[in-house]
Amino acid sequence: MREVYLDNQSATKLDERVLEAMLPFLKEHYGNPQNMHTPGSAAKDALENARNQAAALIGALPNEIYFTSCGSEANNLAIKGAAEAYKNKGKHIVVSSIEHFSVLNAAKRLQQLYGFEVTQVPVDAQGLVSPEEVARALRSDTILVSIQHANSEIGTIQQLTDIAKVVHAHGALFHTDAVATAGIIPANATALGADLLSFAGSMFHGPKGAAALYIKKGVKVVPQIDGGIQENGRRAGTEDVPALVGLGRACDIARAEMVTASAKMAALRDRLITGLQKKIPYVYLNGHPQKRLPGNVNLSVEFIEGEGMMLFLDQKGIYVSSGSACASKALKMSHVLTALKVDAAVGQGSVMFSLSKYTAEEDIDYVLDEFPPIVEKLRNMSPLYNHFMKTGQRQAAGPGTDYEHAHEHAHDEEHDR
Amino acid sequence: MREVYLDNQSATKLDERVLEAMLPFLKEHYGNPQNMHTPGSAAKDALENARNQAAALIGALPNEIYFTSCGSEANNLAIKGAAEAYKNKGKHIVVSSIEHFSVLNAAKRLQQLYGFEVTQVPVDAQGLVSPEEVARALRSDTILVSIQHANSEIGTIQQLTDIAKVVHAHGALFHTDAVATAGIIPANATALGADLLSFAGSMFHGPKGAAALYIKKGVKVVPQIDGGIQENGRRAGTEDVPALVGLGRACDIARAEMVTASAKMAALRDRLITGLQKKIPYVYLNGHPQKRLPGNVNLSVEFIEGEGMMLFLDQKGIYVSSGSACASKALKMSHVLTALKVDAAVGQGSVMFSLSKYTAEEDIDYVLDEFPPIVEKLRNMSPLYNHFMKTGQRQAAGPGTDYEHAHEHAHDEEHDR
Repeated sequence: MREVYLDNQSATKLDERVLEAMLPFLKEHYGNPQNMHTPGSAAKDALENARNQAAALIGALPNEIYFTSCGSEANNLAIKGAAEAYKNKGKHIVVSSIEHFSVLNAAKRLQQLYGFEVTQVPVDAQGLVSPEEVARALRSDTILVSIQHANSEIGTIQQLTDIAKVVHAHGALFHTDAVATAGIIPANATALGADLLSFAGSMFHGPKGAAALYIKKGVKVVPQIDGGIQENGRRAGTEDVPALVGLGRACDIARAEMVTASAKMAALRDRLITGLQKKIPYVYLNGHPQKRLPGNVNLSVEFIEGEGMMLFLDQKGIYVSSGSACASKALKMSHVLTALKVDAAVGQGSVMFSLSKYTAEEDIDYVLDEFPPIVEKLRNMSPLYNHFMKTGQRQAAGPGTDYEHAHEHAHDEEHDR
Repeated sequence: MREVYLDNQSATKLDERVLEAMLPFLKEHYGNPQNMHTPGSAAKDALENARNQAAALIGALPNEIYFTSCGSEANNLAIKGAAEAYKNKGKHIVVSSIEHFSVLNAAKRLQQLYGFEVTQVPVDAQGLVSPEEVARALRSDTILVSIQHANSEIGTIQQLTDIAKVVHAHGALFHTDAVATAGIIPANATALGADLLSFAGSMFHGPKGAAALYIKKGVKVVPQIDGGIQENGRRAGTEDVPALVGLGRACDIARAEMVTASAKMAALRDRLITGLQKKIPYVYLNGHPQKRLPGNVNLSVEFIEGEGMMLFLDQKGIYVSSGSACASKALKMSHVLTALKVDAAVGQGSVMFSLSKYTAEEDIDYVLDEFPPIVEKLRNMSPLYNHFMKTGQRQAAGPGTDYEHAHEHAHDEEHDR
């Protein structure tokens, strides 16, 4: 059976050239970069080389790159670190309603424990944040605004430059979560107007366990992992040299091959969208039709549920997501689709195909062959669909899923295990 | 030239069997364990297998194991996480004066930002914490006591069971940093009386980037990396599956081979200590002579400095540390030796040989041949030594190094780069 991996927003295949760069540091070069002996120096040199490579990807200086263990850690360091550093100036933070949970929940934590206030800026039906809405949310005590570069679930790419201008005119800091974009499309920290920018190698064929936060020179951030003097005192802990070497190499490769890779992905993405819309009735594209990640296809398929599609596709060797990875166990409809005001009945039938540079035309054709019969089979089992077929009327949607409640509840339940 | 790596307290060589276990997850099994499709399930199964292996090493239940990216992160999660969870009960924390910086500085951060109070319990001249001193430090608002299982720098192993009893009788939680012991000597969470216990695979031939915090069932900890529902909602971020699989395998191997490995290390350790003390006059063993890590040899060599010894040894292919890895750039004498009240003049000449299961008898013999002439050469260049040789009198030591100041200063300097 053919295997078609289309869940690249959750995890990507390690580029063989990246693994090749990592292996010497998993084998013979195991020294700690903080030690001055020969093996320590070899590790230190490799680490600084990786820092240069990571800096080049986002147009930063090497000493503006702070390595972390994952994108979520980078987002936490940005949000909590900046909030703690500037709390004497004010305690108000602005985020969009479709941020990743590592931004939303980091902000929520500051609110819950330490009296910060958080405003969520709404998005339009295609997931765009407007500079006007950001301006409306700003207060005299706003210290930080965090708006993602793109949304990994619906693919919408924000127009950050204008938003950053509004934020800076107000004297606040601007953070962007670029985990979904860096390494895939240009994400230049200066061009975007970012004071803080998070990115993660595992999203573009680097290893898991290696990410970074760009901290613009002069911007203060309180460390979230205290201890030794690694990462210039802003992130303690023995550096994961093999993974960071891999991240650096992945940045290098992405920078060299981005134009070709993203053009290829965008063409296949459009082929998939057009093909499915032609073959399947009552199917809707979520997110922005043009301002869209080259690998993202997020569809709502009416009358059926995302999980069913995912499981049937899995049986055909096609691997996709039916919601944000982090929330996939708790939610019927994601907080992102909820924020887009997608109809609850339709949003429950969402499915995400996320492509990578390794996706081939044959993979897309295989999906175009295999997916429509799955939808047909599921719809034939669906009372909603049968009702619609008989009467031409849509049944009223059930009560919409309340994200806050579902997520909190999932936590409580599992904490009790 | 022979190469003899004796800096295993800073980093260890990855066991080949561990790399073998990791490789499939660096190559074909790259799915995100949070996704329900086939590749996600494969990753999830591997992750839970690793959790079982890690739990078995410390005598815990699998659902008491929370993976982190490094020992420092585990210590931060324990200290800050417990402090935040129980802050309504009290805001006082007790630590020993020779804890790792990730414990000391995590506690200091809570003090600096959020009004917690921290008491440092002193140690005796061999680095032991007494239950009586801990009892003296406890207050009605003490919520947490953190005492390390062993000190990686001086090798002293604490008698934790008695300390834990004192802490529990008082109604506080007990955390132990077992990064220096787990995988090397028995570190059973229940036997030690720990509510929280940190350990890291990179200290026993597992990969960097993988560690864990044991959280006893019923103990609350506020997450320090907020976001998705990974690690039962206590540590967000895409799991570094290859590294965690490696950690699990390393735990398995350590458990099976610990008795043999530690006996071999202890014999070589004693051979090195005895041999050097026989060959070099005015050399002193730091730490406890019996209650000591099997791989630890920490010597103060009078009249010369640690850094010089380290660099000359490096030229002979012998790799050692002259101070705690995290602090090696900032300090003349470590905070640990300072707490032991080692004479500043003597303490500046400290050198640490840390052995591993891979250390061979020939390695030790090579050090016994090469090190004494290095000491002699350095002493011949030392005014302190020449003065002593001429007069039989020791010169008064210079002002002792103030750890707090040196460490803070190093931070300031580098932040300005």
